[in-house]
Amino acid sequence: MAKVVVDITASLDGFVAGPDPTLEEPLGRNGERLHEWALETASWREQHGRSGGQANDDSGLIEEATSSTGAYVMGRKMFSGGSGGWEDDPRSRGWWGDEPPFHAPVFVLTHHPREPLELEGTSFSFITDGIERAVELARSAANGKNVAVAGGGATVQQALQAGLVDELQVHVAPILLGSGTRLFAELGDPVSLEATRVVASPKATHLRFTVRP
Amino acid sequence: MAKVVVDITASLDGFVAGPDPTLEEPLGRNGERLHEWALETASWREQHGRSGGQANDDSGLIEEATSSTGAYVMGRKMFSGGSGGWEDDPRSRGWWGDEPPFHAPVFVLTHHPREPLELEGTSFSFITDGIERAVELARSAANGKNVAVAGGGATVQQALQAGLVDELQVHVAPILLGSGTRLFAELGDPVSLEATRVVASPKATHLRFTVRP
Repeated sequence: MAKVVVDITASLDGFVAGPDPTLEEPLGRNGERLHEWALETASWREQHGRSGGQANDDSGLIEEATSSTGAYVMGRKMFSGGSGGWEDDPRSRGWWGDEPPFHAPVFVLTHHPREPLELEGTSFSFITDGIERAVELARSAANGKNVAVAGGGATVQQALQAGLVDELQVHVAPILLGSGTRLFAELGDPVSLEATRVVASPKATHLRFTVRP
Repeated sequence: MAKVVVDITASLDGFVAGPDPTLEEPLGRNGERLHEWALETASWREQHGRSGGQANDDSGLIEEATSSTGAYVMGRKMFSGGSGGWEDDPRSRGWWGDEPPFHAPVFVLTHHPREPLELEGTSFSFITDGIERAVELARSAANGKNVAVAGGGATVQQALQAGLVDELQVHVAPILLGSGTRLFAELGDPVSLEATRVVASPKATHLRFTVRP
């Protein structure tokens, strides 16, 4: 059975981006430090059309996530980069360039309807009727594979609050970011988890949990 | 060299207590669920004057922390239980009863001066001139062992902001608590960490980090 998986990198203090995101620094101040664990891996480089890189545990986890994911759900800011605000411009191709690293259909949560954007190996569809609908469409598009809720924090929180998430994988970067966008806000009722795997690499601690029914 | 260590249990979403703490529920609603991993261990039971319990990895970590700690620093709410507000009553013996589980001197951060409280195996000293002074006094009292910053969230944050912390051990309980008291608030500048150990047990994921200079 295909799962809905949150797969995201956060600082130990729970931030997925630093403060003051801009188009130049879409992850905010110091936010790029969160992803240092991924940047040198062979898998990340391959996803981004580059060769080389390290074939380590970190790389294996990226490869595992990529190969098991059939569709992505993300927020409008993640599509448009940083502070957003131009994702509704029908000419915009998003922040990810002409060959985005998502080699599967992407469903973008937004308030602004626009036509789907077809790019090399990816499509971006813009969903204006909420997280449930976005996940439902992603499930259909995923062809039996998993749906990855890719971020940012607000989108993850909506998915959790709606009870849509089956599994959480948090890549904990060894840093206290000190401020920025939180992965988890106030959710309301507790959600019981089961720890199903820990992979410790020098650059990140990868925690995986199943959401208990 | 003795270290200043933060050693605390938090939910995956970073809460160290649930909402609405009371004297009956000093960890707030659902807050006791955070500590389920500890309650059945042999070490915890021994600390609390009970026999039995499991001699598992969780128990080993508690024993390790206890035996390496020479003094504790805590906030007034942790001393007085839950919402606090009566820690300045000189008759109060705190929330922990006549035989507290801290078998070493404890330094309580408060705004209300009062005489030290001597109990079985423990003393509580009340420090009104800030976290630096509390840690300095704890260092002297620790006799070469570590100083443990035991909580709650506000006290941990003060210690981090003052640059006093050498090591962080976070016991991640497999739950999203959804609301309550956060372990990490806005700290300001980033703090670089180094992951030095991960112990995964079925009931908690124990993450240890050294603070980089």
